[in-house]
Amino acid sequence: MAASWISRQLTLSLQKNLWLSAPGCRYVSKAAAKAQMEFDYDGPSMKTAVPGPRSQELTKQLGDIQNVGAVNFFCNYEESRGNYLVDVDGNRMLDIYTQISSIPIGYNHPALLKLMTNPNNLSTFVNRPALGILPPENFPDKIAESLLSVAPSGMTRVQTMACGSCSNENAYKAMFIWYRNKERGYKTPSDEDHSTCMINQAPGCPDLSILSFMGAFHGRTMGCLATTHSKVIHKLDVPSFDWPIAPFPKLQYPLEEFTRENALEEARCLEEVEDLIVKWRQKGKPVAGIVIEPIQAEGGDNHASPDFFRRLRDIARKHGCAFHVDEVQTGGGGTGKFWAHEHWGMDDPADIVSFSKKLLTGGYYHKDELQADKPYRIFNTWMGDPSKNLFLSEVLNVIRRENLLEEVTRSGKALLNGLYELQAQYPGILSRARGQGTFCAIDICDGATRDTILVKARDKGVLLGGCGDRSIRFRPALVFKEYHVHLLLNIFNDVLANHK
Amino acid sequence: MAASWISRQLTLSLQKNLWLSAPGCRYVSKAAAKAQMEFDYDGPSMKTAVPGPRSQELTKQLGDIQNVGAVNFFCNYEESRGNYLVDVDGNRMLDIYTQISSIPIGYNHPALLKLMTNPNNLSTFVNRPALGILPPENFPDKIAESLLSVAPSGMTRVQTMACGSCSNENAYKAMFIWYRNKERGYKTPSDEDHSTCMINQAPGCPDLSILSFMGAFHGRTMGCLATTHSKVIHKLDVPSFDWPIAPFPKLQYPLEEFTRENALEEARCLEEVEDLIVKWRQKGKPVAGIVIEPIQAEGGDNHASPDFFRRLRDIARKHGCAFHVDEVQTGGGGTGKFWAHEHWGMDDPADIVSFSKKLLTGGYYHKDELQADKPYRIFNTWMGDPSKNLFLSEVLNVIRRENLLEEVTRSGKALLNGLYELQAQYPGILSRARGQGTFCAIDICDGATRDTILVKARDKGVLLGGCGDRSIRFRPALVFKEYHVHLLLNIFNDVLANHK
Repeated sequence: MAASWISRQLTLSLQKNLWLSAPGCRYVSKAAAKAQMEFDYDGPSMKTAVPGPRSQELTKQLGDIQNVGAVNFFCNYEESRGNYLVDVDGNRMLDIYTQISSIPIGYNHPALLKLMTNPNNLSTFVNRPALGILPPENFPDKIAESLLSVAPSGMTRVQTMACGSCSNENAYKAMFIWYRNKERGYKTPSDEDHSTCMINQAPGCPDLSILSFMGAFHGRTMGCLATTHSKVIHKLDVPSFDWPIAPFPKLQYPLEEFTRENALEEARCLEEVEDLIVKWRQKGKPVAGIVIEPIQAEGGDNHASPDFFRRLRDIARKHGCAFHVDEVQTGGGGTGKFWAHEHWGMDDPADIVSFSKKLLTGGYYHKDELQADKPYRIFNTWMGDPSKNLFLSEVLNVIRRENLLEEVTRSGKALLNGLYELQAQYPGILSRARGQGTFCAIDICDGATRDTILVKARDKGVLLGGCGDRSIRFRPALVFKEYHVHLLLNIFNDVLANHK
Repeated sequence: MAASWISRQLTLSLQKNLWLSAPGCRYVSKAAAKAQMEFDYDGPSMKTAVPGPRSQELTKQLGDIQNVGAVNFFCNYEESRGNYLVDVDGNRMLDIYTQISSIPIGYNHPALLKLMTNPNNLSTFVNRPALGILPPENFPDKIAESLLSVAPSGMTRVQTMACGSCSNENAYKAMFIWYRNKERGYKTPSDEDHSTCMINQAPGCPDLSILSFMGAFHGRTMGCLATTHSKVIHKLDVPSFDWPIAPFPKLQYPLEEFTRENALEEARCLEEVEDLIVKWRQKGKPVAGIVIEPIQAEGGDNHASPDFFRRLRDIARKHGCAFHVDEVQTGGGGTGKFWAHEHWGMDDPADIVSFSKKLLTGGYYHKDELQADKPYRIFNTWMGDPSKNLFLSEVLNVIRRENLLEEVTRSGKALLNGLYELQAQYPGILSRARGQGTFCAIDICDGATRDTILVKARDKGVLLGGCGDRSIRFRPALVFKEYHVHLLLNIFNDVLANHK
C-alpha cells in the first residue's frame, strides 16, 4: 500500500478531485484562499500523539543500530505531498521545517516523479561516475542549464560536491591554495614545501586561518567545524584550529527603532574583524579567507544589514582575504531571491559561494582566480552526483514556470506581518520577529517554552524547528502559499492562546 | 539515441543474441572461456584515439566551467554495460579502473535498472530525508537487509554518510568523543570544556591526535587530510594537525624469498608505532585512534601481513587507542572477501570500519562503545541517502545470487598468475606483482614508463589506473570473470611486447 499514491500519480495522471479533504481547522485571523496546487492536501490531520505507536516501535528497532536521540518520528514519504509530511501513524503535518530546510518544492512534486519515469534518465541513477575524470556526455549541458543558470553575479565557474560540509571544506582549500600561490608570487612550490606537506608541517602545510563569526554554522567536518560556533554539542571533544572568531552583530528589534544602536553594533563588529586580521597576521597565521552566512541560521537566525556585508566584503578585499559566502541554508529561493546575498545589491558580492540542501547537490561557485592551479588539488572520487543535478534542473524549471520566487516574497510578507501581529498580541512570549521571504524566525521568552511550543504545534499538525537558544525558525518549501501562511498562523495562535 | 540500450532492456527484456560482437583480439596466452554474463559486450572496440574528437570538444566546453586537467574522456554511460565503458566517440573499453574502484557489479546491471522501474521505489529517490531526525518507515529494515547483513565481525551498529571523506571525518570524531569520555571518567563535561570548545581551544577542543601511516590515503577534507600521506598534490598549502605518522612496511617481493627481511620490516614499523604513541602522549597530544587501510591503495597498493595487522590491533588495545580500519577502497568484495580485514582471521578486527565507493553509500560500522553518548554529536542534514541504500541492497543480492566473491577469488587467482608470468617475461619492466582477489597491482620500472603503458593500454581498449609513484592498480568490477582476465592479460602483453 505504501506507494499507492505515487502509483496513482503515474497511472491516472493528475486528477484534482483525487485529493482527500482534511478535517476543518479553526481560522481565527484571515480567511485563507484555497490552495492552487495540484499536489497538496487541504490541511493537517492528526490521528495520534507524535511520535505515535508505530514511530515508537520503529525508533526502538533503529535504536539497536544507531543513536536515535534526534529522531522525531518516522515518515511515510510515499503519502507525503506538497507542504504536507505524513508520518507512519497516519498523521499529516504542515511542514515548516522541510528536512532541515532541504526540500525545495515540496514532497513528491509531479515534475520530479515524471523525471523518474523517463527511460533517458535511468542510466544517470544507475551508473554514478567519478565526475572529475570520466564525466558523462551531458555533464557540461546539465551544469549549464542548472547551476550556471542561477550563478551568483561575477561567477562563471562551479564545482559540485556531495554535501554542504564537503562544499565548505573544499572552498576553504581553494582559498588556502589561492592565498599561498599569491604569497609565493605564483612561483613553483619549493622542495621544502613538498617535503614538509607530507608530514603535516609548515611551510608545506602552512599556518593559515579562516576568519569566522561567533554563532556561525558551516558544517561538522574538521575544517568546517573550526569555523562553526553555534552550539557546544557540535564542537565538544573535537580537536580544532587556532583561527580568529569575530562577533556577529546582535541587532535590536524592531529595527526601525534602533537604527543608531544597530549601526554602532555593526561598526563594532567590523572593527573587530579588522583587528583580528591584523592580530592573526602578526601571530604568523594570516587570514586566507573570511566565511559568513548571509543569515546565521543554526545560530539563531541572526541578520545583519546589507551595508554590513558590503563593508565586510571591502575589508576582505583590503586585506587580501578571499570572501566566502556560505549559502548552504539561505540559497535556493527561501529569502525571495535565489541567493540571499542578492539582497545586498552588489555586482561583486563574493569570491566563493557555497551551497547544498535545496540545491540537492552540494558545491561552490567561485571566481576564476579561485580555481586551483592544478588538477587533483580539489578532487575526490564522486565530485557530486549527476542524478542530483538532474533533479536540480527540474526544480529550477518549476521555480521559473510557477514564479515561485514571487510567491515566496508574497507568502513571506504575509508570514512576517502575521508574526508581527502575534508578537503584539503575545508580548510576554514573542519578540524579535524577523525574516526575508519565508526565511523567518521569532524569539520565544526562553528555551524551555520554545521547546514546549514546538511540541504543541506539532500535536496540532504544524512541524517547526528551533534554532539558537530560544528561536523558532520557519523554513517552508518554495510552494508554501499565502493559504498555508494563514493556516500556520492560526494554529500557531491557538498554541500561544492556550499557553497563556 | 542515448538511452536506446536501456530502453531495449526495459521493453524487450533480456535477449542474449542482442549483444553486438566485437572485433577480434589476438590471444597470445590462454584461450578465454566465453563470457557467461547477459549484460556484457564481447570485447573492446576502438574507433579513435582517446580522448577522441567529441571528448576533446566536451572537455573544452567543461573547461569554461571547471578545471578539466584530470578529465580522461567523456563517457556514454547509457551504452556502457558490464565490464565495458563506452566513450562519447564510440570507443568501448574493458574497464579495470571502474570509476576509481567504485562500480560494484558493472555498468547498467539489469537488476539495478529493474529496481528503478519499481514504482514503490520512486519516493525514495524524489524525497531525500534528513535521516537523523525523520527517517522513512523502511529505514531500519533496509539497513538490516543491506549494511547489517555484511557487518564486520563484532559490529552491530552502523552510521551512513554521504561519501568516504565524511565517513572518515565522523569516525575520527567518534573516536575523539569516546577517548575524551574515558579521560573524564564518563563525567559530565565541565563548564570550561563548554566555554573553550566554542572558541576552538583546549580543553573543550582537546589536543588529541590520530596516528596514521606514511603512504596512507583517507580522504581530502581537513581531518582526513591530516592522516593522508600519499601524494604532495593532495596536501600542499592546506593547514594541518601535528599528528604522528608511522612508517608502513615496505615489503620485498617475491614474499616467499624475503620472509625474514619482511618480518623484521614489519616489526620495525610496529615498534615505531609504539614509540610515536608514547612520544605524542608526552607531547600532550595523546593518540585517540589509529587509522589504517588493509591495503594502502592510492599510496601504491602496499600490503602487509595479517600478522602485522593483528599485532597493530593489539598495540592499539594496549595503549587505549581506538582501531579504525578504513575499507573505503578495499571493502565490497574486490579482495575475494567482502572486507579485506577478513583475511586477517580475527573475531575482533577493529573498533571502527569505514566504507564508501562500491558500497554506494558512505558510512562506518562501530562497536557499541564508540557510539557518541548524545544525539547531534555525529550528525548532519542528510546522514547518507536512502536511495543509495536501495541500490546497495540489490548489489548485495546480486553478489550472493551470482556467488561473486567466489568468482572474484577465481578471477583474482588467474590475474595474479598472469601477472607473475608477464613479470617473468618482462623483468626489465615489471616487478612486485601482488594482490588479493582481483585487487591486484604491479610495479613498472619508472613513473614515466608507467604512464606511457597506461595510455597505450587504453588505446588498445583496456582502461587501467595508476597508484603510488610507479604502480598500476587493477580494480575491475565484481563481474570480472576469467574470460576478462585473459582478454586483459593478452592486451597488456601486447603493450609490453611493443614497448620492449
